[in-house]
Amino acid sequence: MNTFACTCLSICLAAAAAVMTPALAQQRPASAGPADPQLIEDLIAANRILAMQGVVDAMGHVSVRHNRDPNRYLMSLARAPELVTEADIMEYDLDSNPVRDPGRRQYSERYIHGEIYKLRPDVFAVVHAHTPSVVPFTVSRVPLRAIAHSGGFLAEGLPTFEIREAGGMTDMLVSNAAFGRALAEKLGDKPAILLRGHGMAVTGKSLPYVVGRSIYLGVAAKLQAEAIALGGAITYLDPEEGRKIEARRDYIRPWELWKRHAMGK
Amino acid sequence: MNTFACTCLSICLAAAAAVMTPALAQQRPASAGPADPQLIEDLIAANRILAMQGVVDAMGHVSVRHNRDPNRYLMSLARAPELVTEADIMEYDLDSNPVRDPGRRQYSERYIHGEIYKLRPDVFAVVHAHTPSVVPFTVSRVPLRAIAHSGGFLAEGLPTFEIREAGGMTDMLVSNAAFGRALAEKLGDKPAILLRGHGMAVTGKSLPYVVGRSIYLGVAAKLQAEAIALGGAITYLDPEEGRKIEARRDYIRPWELWKRHAMGK
Amino acid sequence: MNTFACTCLSICLAAAAAVMTPALAQQRPASAGPADPQLIEDLIAANRILAMQGVVDAMGHVSVRHNRDPNRYLMSLARAPELVTEADIMEYDLDSNPVRDPGRRQYSERYIHGEIYKLRPDVFAVVHAHTPSVVPFTVSRVPLRAIAHSGGFLAEGLPTFEIREAGGMTDMLVSNAAFGRALAEKLGDKPAILLRGHGMAVTGKSLPYVVGRSIYLGVAAKLQAEAIALGGAITYLDPEEGRKIEARRDYIRPWELWKRHAMGK
Amino acid sequence: MNTFACTCLSICLAAAAAVMTPALAQQRPASAGPADPQLIEDLIAANRILAMQGVVDAMGHVSVRHNRDPNRYLMSLARAPELVTEADIMEYDLDSNPVRDPGRRQYSERYIHGEIYKLRPDVFAVVHAHTPSVVPFTVSRVPLRAIAHSGGFLAEGLPTFEIREAGGMTDMLVSNAAFGRALAEKLGDKPAILLRGHGMAVTGKSLPYVVGRSIYLGVAAKLQAEAIALGGAITYLDPEEGRKIEARRDYIRPWELWKRHAMGK
Repeated sequence: MNTFACTCLSICLAAAAAVMTPALAQQRPASAGPADPQLIEDLIAANRILAMQGVVDAMGHVSVRHNRDPNRYLMSLARAPELVTEADIMEYDLDSNPVRDPGRRQYSERYIHGEIYKLRPDVFAVVHAHTPSVVPFTVSRVPLRAIAHSGGFLAEGLPTFEIREAGGMTDMLVSNAAFGRALAEKLGDKPAILLRGHGMAVTGKSLPYVVGRSIYLGVAAKLQAEAIALGGAITYLDPEEGRKIEARRDYIRPWELWKRHAMGK
Repeated sequence: MNTFACTCLSICLAAAAAVMTPALAQQRPASAGPADPQLIEDLIAANRILAMQGVVDAMGHVSVRHNRDPNRYLMSLARAPELVTEADIMEYDLDSNPVRDPGRRQYSERYIHGEIYKLRPDVFAVVHAHTPSVVPFTVSRVPLRAIAHSGGFLAEGLPTFEIREAGGMTDMLVSNAAFGRALAEKLGDKPAILLRGHGMAVTGKSLPYVVGRSIYLGVAAKLQAEAIALGGAITYLDPEEGRKIEARRDYIRPWELWKRHAMGK
Repeated sequence: MNTFACTCLSICLAAAAAVMTPALAQQRPASAGPADPQLIEDLIAANRILAMQGVVDAMGHVSVRHNRDPNRYLMSLARAPELVTEADIMEYDLDSNPVRDPGRRQYSERYIHGEIYKLRPDVFAVVHAHTPSVVPFTVSRVPLRAIAHSGGFLAEGLPTFEIREAGGMTDMLVSNAAFGRALAEKLGDKPAILLRGHGMAVTGKSLPYVVGRSIYLGVAAKLQAEAIALGGAITYLDPEEGRKIEARRDYIRPWELWKRHAMGK
Repeated sequence: MNTFACTCLSICLAAAAAVMTPALAQQRPASAGPADPQLIEDLIAANRILAMQGVVDAMGHVSVRHNRDPNRYLMSLARAPELVTEADIMEYDLDSNPVRDPGRRQYSERYIHGEIYKLRPDVFAVVHAHTPSVVPFTVSRVPLRAIAHSGGFLAEGLPTFEIREAGGMTDMLVSNAAFGRALAEKLGDKPAILLRGHGMAVTGKSLPYVVGRSIYLGVAAKLQAEAIALGGAITYLDPEEGRKIEARRDYIRPWELWKRHAMGK
C-alpha cells in the first residue's frame, strides 16, 4: 500500500470538503488517515472467519473503529464477507457516511455499526449477522439464555429489537440512522442484541472479541435448543457465573486457530 | 464454441423438420439458435451452486428460458447437477420436446419446467429439487411460513401440489404434460410450490433469483422447524413485510460468492 | 493384477483343500476364481461412497456376490471402508469362511452377509451400517416409514431384529452363523432390516442398488424425524405409491456422481 | 529430536531443582526423561483427531501418562488442539506442575488430568472437551444413556460434576487442584464424567481408547437426543449388554482411519 499517496489523497479530500457547501461536506467527511495495516489484516481475517464458522453466509458484515480516530470506522463495501480484500475496505464517520468513493455499492445496514459506536465508546468492533441457530430465538417467546460457560457474556440475557416499534411494517432492514439509533438504544450496555425476524448485532472491545462472541452466540443458541428438546428441566448459567467467566475471558487461543484457517498460513 | 457450425446445424435440423410428417415435426421442434454463452455459463453455475448448497443431491434440475425465444428453454440432459457441462445442455420447446438428440437420456420430470413457462410469462428460470429441510413441510399439516426476512418471498404462503388429486396412486413423478399442467395451475402466481412427499418447484425472473429463492426456501424451512422446536409462540413475518422486502430484493451479493465457488475462480 | 498367478494360486489352494481332513476342508472352501475387475472396482467404490455419504464411519461393511459363483461373496478384510483397496478384498463361501488367508483380521459380523445370501437368491449385494439417523428408529416404538418418494422401497415398512430374542444379553454383534441366520429369517423378503440398538442391513440386486438404498434409508429417517418434530399430522407414502416408484427405480444418475467422487475421476 | 541433549537438559534441571528451596523445588519437579517418540506422535494425532471429529473446537485438551513414569503426564501448552506440534508438548507431575518452562502459557484446567491420574492408576489417557451434543445433557434432568452398542461404556450411566458443590458461584473452570480432586472423586471408577454447564472428562487405558470413547460419547448424545425427539418409548442398552460389549472392545479399526486422516498419510 502506498501510504504516502493515501495520506495525500485524504488531505486533498479534506481540503476539497472544506470548500464544499455544508450539506455536501457532511456527506464527505475527512479521513483519519491510513489505518494500521495489522488492523486491516485482522478485519479481513474477521470477515473470512465469520464465513468459515457459519456466522454469516453471503450476507452480514463486520466493522472496527479506526485506530487513529474513534469517530471513524472501517468496513468493507457491499460484498460477501468471505470475498473481502484490502481494496474493499472503506472508512466511515459515525453517521455512516464514507470518507471517499460514495458511489461504491455499500451495506445498506451500515447504520447498525455507526449508531452503536456513537452510543458505546467501550465498543471497538461490531458484527451484524443472520446466524441460522440464532434467528429462531429472535421470533420465539422463549428467551435465549446460556447453558454453558462459553456463553458467559449472555448469562444476563439479551434485548430484542422489534423494528415494528421503530417503523411499523418495513422491509426489516436497519437501513437508516433512525432505525440504527433505535437499535443502539435498545442494545444499551449489553454485549449483543437480537433483531426480530432478522438476526443479531454483537459488540466487542476488539475484533477477536466480537468474532468470538458472534461464534459462541451461535453455539449458545444451538446448545439451548438441544437442551430444550430433551424435555427435562434445565439448569441455566447463573448471572454471577457469567460475570466471573467474562472477567477472565480472552479469545487468544481460538483467534490463533481461526486466523490461521482464514489466512491460510 | 463454434457458433457458425451450431447455427448451420440448427438450420439443417429446421429444414429437416419441415419435410417430416406433422406428427414427427411436433416431436422435433425448431431450435431458436445458439444461446448467449453467458446464459449457458450461468446455467452451468446454477447447477453446481444448487449442488454445493445442498438444494439438490444427485437428483433435481434447473432450467432457463432461451434468450432468443421465450418458447424455448434450456436444461441439462439427465445428469446429476454437479456434473453438468456445456455439452449436456439441451433445448426444449414448451411441450418439453427436445429440438435435437431425442435419444439422449432426459429428465422425466421436465414437464414441470415447460408447463410453468407456458402459464407464467414472468418466469425465466425454474428449479425442481428435493431439499431435505423442505420435504417434511410437504407432508405435514403445519404450513411452511417465513420467520425471517430472507424468506420474504414466501410470507404469503405457498401452495402444495398433491399428485393424488391429478393421478391417484402414482410413482409420484411429474412425468407427463398433464401432471405438469396441473402443477403449474396449482402454482398460480406464487413464487414456488411444494410437492407432497416429493419436493418443490421454484420460479424466478432470472437464474440468480431462482437459485437464491431455492437456497433460502431451504433455509426458511430449517429456521421455522427450529423455531417450532423451541416450544414458544412465534412471531411470523407479516405479508406486508414480505412484500416490502421483495420490492428491493436482489441476489447480486450472494450470486457473486456462489458463482465464484461454483466456477472455481 | 496378475490374473494368471491368481488363478494358479486358487487352483493350488483347491488342491490343498482336497487333501485336508473334512473339518479343515470345510474351513477352507474352494475359490470361484478371479472376480470381474469391474466388480472389484465397484466394490471399492461402494466402500468409499458409503463413507463419503456418512452411511458408515470407521465401522460397517459392504459385500457383493462373486460374478462366477452365487455361492461365494466378496468383502474387505476388517478395515474402515474408506481405506479399502483391492488387496483387502477377500472371498467367502456362504458360511462366511474365507477361501484363503484365514489368519487375516476379518469382520466379525460377516455372517450378516453370508446368511442373507443363502436365503435370498435375488440379493446380490449387502450393506451393514450404523447410520446415525437410522439408529434411533431401531430403539423407538415409532416405526420408520417413508414420507418421500426417495424412500419408496420402505413404504411397506421394515422388520426389526432384536438380538435378545436370538441370544438374550449379548455383546450385540451378529458374530456367528446362528445370529446371522435369525437375522436373515427376520428380514424375509424385505429390502432391509433394522437391528435394535445397533444399525441396519440393506440388500440390493447390485452394488449401485444397495448403496443407493443405504443412503436413502438414512435420508428417509432424517426426513421422518423432522416431519414428526413439526408436530402436525403427516401424510405418509402409500404402499402402492412405493411399489410404483420401485418398479421404475434405478440408481444410474446418483451412481455416476457418487463413483466419480469416490474414485476421484 | 536430539535425545542426548534432552536427557542432559532434564538432568541439569533436576540438579538445579535439588539446590532450590523446597517450595521452588515443588514447582519444578524432575523430568522422567524423553518420552517414546511413538507416544508423542500418537498424542499429536489424538489432538488433531479430536479437532477433526468435532469433539473439541479451539478449546479442550488431551493428555497421556509418560511411558517412563506413571507420576508424569504429557500434554500440550495452551494451544488449540488442531495446531499442536511436538514442540508444544510439556511434561507435568501429578500436581500438574510442569517440569520445565513454567512461563509458557498453560491450560488452566490441567488439574482435571493430574487429579484423575492420581486417583485412577488404570487410566493412561484423559480428554477434556465441550462437545456440543454432550453439553445439553450436562444441564438437563434427562440423564445421558446409551441406545446403541457404540456407547457400551456408558450403559451404566455417567456421574455429573456440579462445580457449585465444590466452589459455589465460580467461573466454571476446574482451574485448581481442589476442583480437580473433587471432579476425580466424583468420577470414581467410571469411564467418563459430565461437567455441568461445561462439558466432559473422559478416561481410557490408551490414547486410542480415550479418543474413541470421546468421539462415541458425542455420538451417543446425538443418538439419544434424536430418539427422544421421535416421541415413542425407547429401549436402552442393558448394562449387561454394555459390559459384554466393552469386554471385547478395541479401537484398532477406527484409530487406523482417524490417524491416517490426522497425519495426512
